[in-house]
Amino acid sequence: MPNETITAPEGFRANGVAAGIKTSGRLDVGLLVADAPTDAAAVFTQNRFCGAPIVVGRQHMKGGRLRAIVVNSGCSNVATGARGLADARATCRQVADALGAPVRQVLPASTGVIGEFLPMDKLGVGIDAALGSLSPSAAAGRRFARAILTTDLKIKQACRRVRLGRATVTIAGCCKGSGMIAPRMATMLGYLTTDAHLARGILNRLLREAVETSFNRVTIDECQSTSDMVVLMASGRSGRADTQKRLASFASALREVCESLAYQIAADGEGATRVLEVVVGGARTHGEAHAAARAIAVSPLVKTAVHGGDPNWGRIIQALGQTQVRYAPDHVTVRLGGIVLFRRGAPARNLDRAALGRLMRKKHVTISADLGAGTACDRVLTCDFSREYVTINADYHT
Amino acid sequence: MPNETITAPEGFRANGVAAGIKTSGRLDVGLLVADAPTDAAAVFTQNRFCGAPIVVGRQHMKGGRLRAIVVNSGCSNVATGARGLADARATCRQVADALGAPVRQVLPASTGVIGEFLPMDKLGVGIDAALGSLSPSAAAGRRFARAILTTDLKIKQACRRVRLGRATVTIAGCCKGSGMIAPRMATMLGYLTTDAHLARGILNRLLREAVETSFNRVTIDECQSTSDMVVLMASGRSGRADTQKRLASFASALREVCESLAYQIAADGEGATRVLEVVVGGARTHGEAHAAARAIAVSPLVKTAVHGGDPNWGRIIQALGQTQVRYAPDHVTVRLGGIVLFRRGAPARNLDRAALGRLMRKKHVTISADLGAGTACDRVLTCDFSREYVTINADYHT
Repeated sequence: MPNETITAPEGFRANGVAAGIKTSGRLDVGLLVADAPTDAAAVFTQNRFCGAPIVVGRQHMKGGRLRAIVVNSGCSNVATGARGLADARATCRQVADALGAPVRQVLPASTGVIGEFLPMDKLGVGIDAALGSLSPSAAAGRRFARAILTTDLKIKQACRRVRLGRATVTIAGCCKGSGMIAPRMATMLGYLTTDAHLARGILNRLLREAVETSFNRVTIDECQSTSDMVVLMASGRSGRADTQKRLASFASALREVCESLAYQIAADGEGATRVLEVVVGGARTHGEAHAAARAIAVSPLVKTAVHGGDPNWGRIIQALGQTQVRYAPDHVTVRLGGIVLFRRGAPARNLDRAALGRLMRKKHVTISADLGAGTACDRVLTCDFSREYVTINADYHT
Repeated sequence: MPNETITAPEGFRANGVAAGIKTSGRLDVGLLVADAPTDAAAVFTQNRFCGAPIVVGRQHMKGGRLRAIVVNSGCSNVATGARGLADARATCRQVADALGAPVRQVLPASTGVIGEFLPMDKLGVGIDAALGSLSPSAAAGRRFARAILTTDLKIKQACRRVRLGRATVTIAGCCKGSGMIAPRMATMLGYLTTDAHLARGILNRLLREAVETSFNRVTIDECQSTSDMVVLMASGRSGRADTQKRLASFASALREVCESLAYQIAADGEGATRVLEVVVGGARTHGEAHAAARAIAVSPLVKTAVHGGDPNWGRIIQALGQTQVRYAPDHVTVRLGGIVLFRRGAPARNLDRAALGRLMRKKHVTISADLGAGTACDRVLTCDFSREYVTINADYHT
């Protein structure tokens, strides 16, 4: 089986080790290293209480070149003041010194509990251990993918290969999601590698576009994290995306990787038992389509109904009614899968309740609303809302 | 014990009967009747998919005079098109004819499942039964308060008496809350009676002001109902609030009644085990204080932490960081009760965790944040977020 992990593209090695930062003893330090400096692009959380690694990461990304990404889970280094900033910088320096790279070519990231200082001794040992056995193997890629997780149940990876002229380039990624997920720029940790060569400005644009239709279309609990980012590193070791056609092929594959990862985040949302896809069409503008889809996707009443397997369209129109989006209630149609639930201001007659029940119990439930007001559409992914979400978050102690 | 129900003020009778609209067999039709036409004021939900009773109620309130309010629970008559409107009007007509009153002096209300037609036969029988034994007794007032409930566990009532010159006037109210509660104007069914005499314009203004600081400061799940309203009827049978001083006394008592009812809604929120009061001070504007308090109060991460008894201030600053409110993160102080958790960008040192644990396990938990940016403040009431909320809403089938 070919390597389909973050190390699949040429020029990358990775590792993940258990440094004891997580009390569970699971992997908690991940290192992703390029053989040589790469062109890189990143988007960061817009939360204003962002963590020290975000502050440092933004500074380092000004150079636009990255050699390594160092991630720890178990402690987010958020709200840790000057000491937190110093810790994030020291972590980068340790990696940079070992690689003989400038410190600004190392991007730090931390995820986990807010408001605690990084256990620098454990982290330092973990980084040394990870540096000692970096590998381009699939096993190493998977270890990295596992080391960045918090309450996720599964590792999240995606890989696509695409022909650019005579060369085949690879795009791979992994991410962590699970809780505190809301789309306002980057909303989790997401790492992407490719061996394609692209001009740096284009790399930036393509990343932003891909994030917009993928990670920025997922909400788990509408809580915007303080730590999150999506980063793309391009080693340039394989084909060049230097024509419009090649760029389009590359962009499409990058979007597929991001959309696959985003879907995996929704499917592994805290407590999730199924994915809910909300599609809104017939809106006046794309922004209004998004606002309407988002209103439905964030409603705890809709999400608990989906959990209970109940085609409760009343809660869908309640959520729509709460928005400022322009439409006439009498023109709205609400569907579950292909079945109309509500049309022209009234419930559909003679519903096939058995068929609805079957649709609601699937692993993927699609609710669609046509606002009958225009031609714009958008979609948002989320998951159902279960007791398990409460259990996870009521028992996850600081 | 004096009557402290909705019939406590002079000039009102009430009743509540079980008409079989709720399958549970509980009281589901409530009738509140004034002995003579009263001056009245009302605020209605701003949800655009509002129910037929809201549409009819808005029309009837244009007259500003009410003789009766007829409420059913178990079926909300929302999204029921022309037939729903006809049903709401027919219900008013039945009551009006029995009382010899104009139909526009009857206000209808329905709460419960969305998208089903009212069972007019059962409702008609229930209204006749309720009309047959209207009473000014406390028992009748309690029956009315019970008949308007849906998933509420407790009836919610409040009563204040206030001296206006030589007269004593009474203000009483009851409401239903529980789920689909978010503050954008009225957000539940709330009924208020008084025997004071006030000019109608003043009645309107005082109701709006009282709702603003009470019902509009409660959120359970940030879902804005399609059915809700607050109505105040003034029989004028007792003292006149006709001087500035008397008006102020009356306004203050009215606000107390509304705030007591709002608090009861938070305490009986779906699945609630404790009330969470979020106070934000030091904001640039009142609107920003409200936005910040609201952001904390709606966060499922904060609410599950409160449920778990965990002073997780990281989630509080995460919620603050997500807003557009103006402040410098380094100037923010977060307290639980009187204990500082977070100050000047860093966690407080030497926290008394035992004291914090005791505060978190109380029935009323207060989180306060000082933004250090101005002088405006506001507060929002909500409840914790439990598995029981999910159970209630996943199992409440359409």
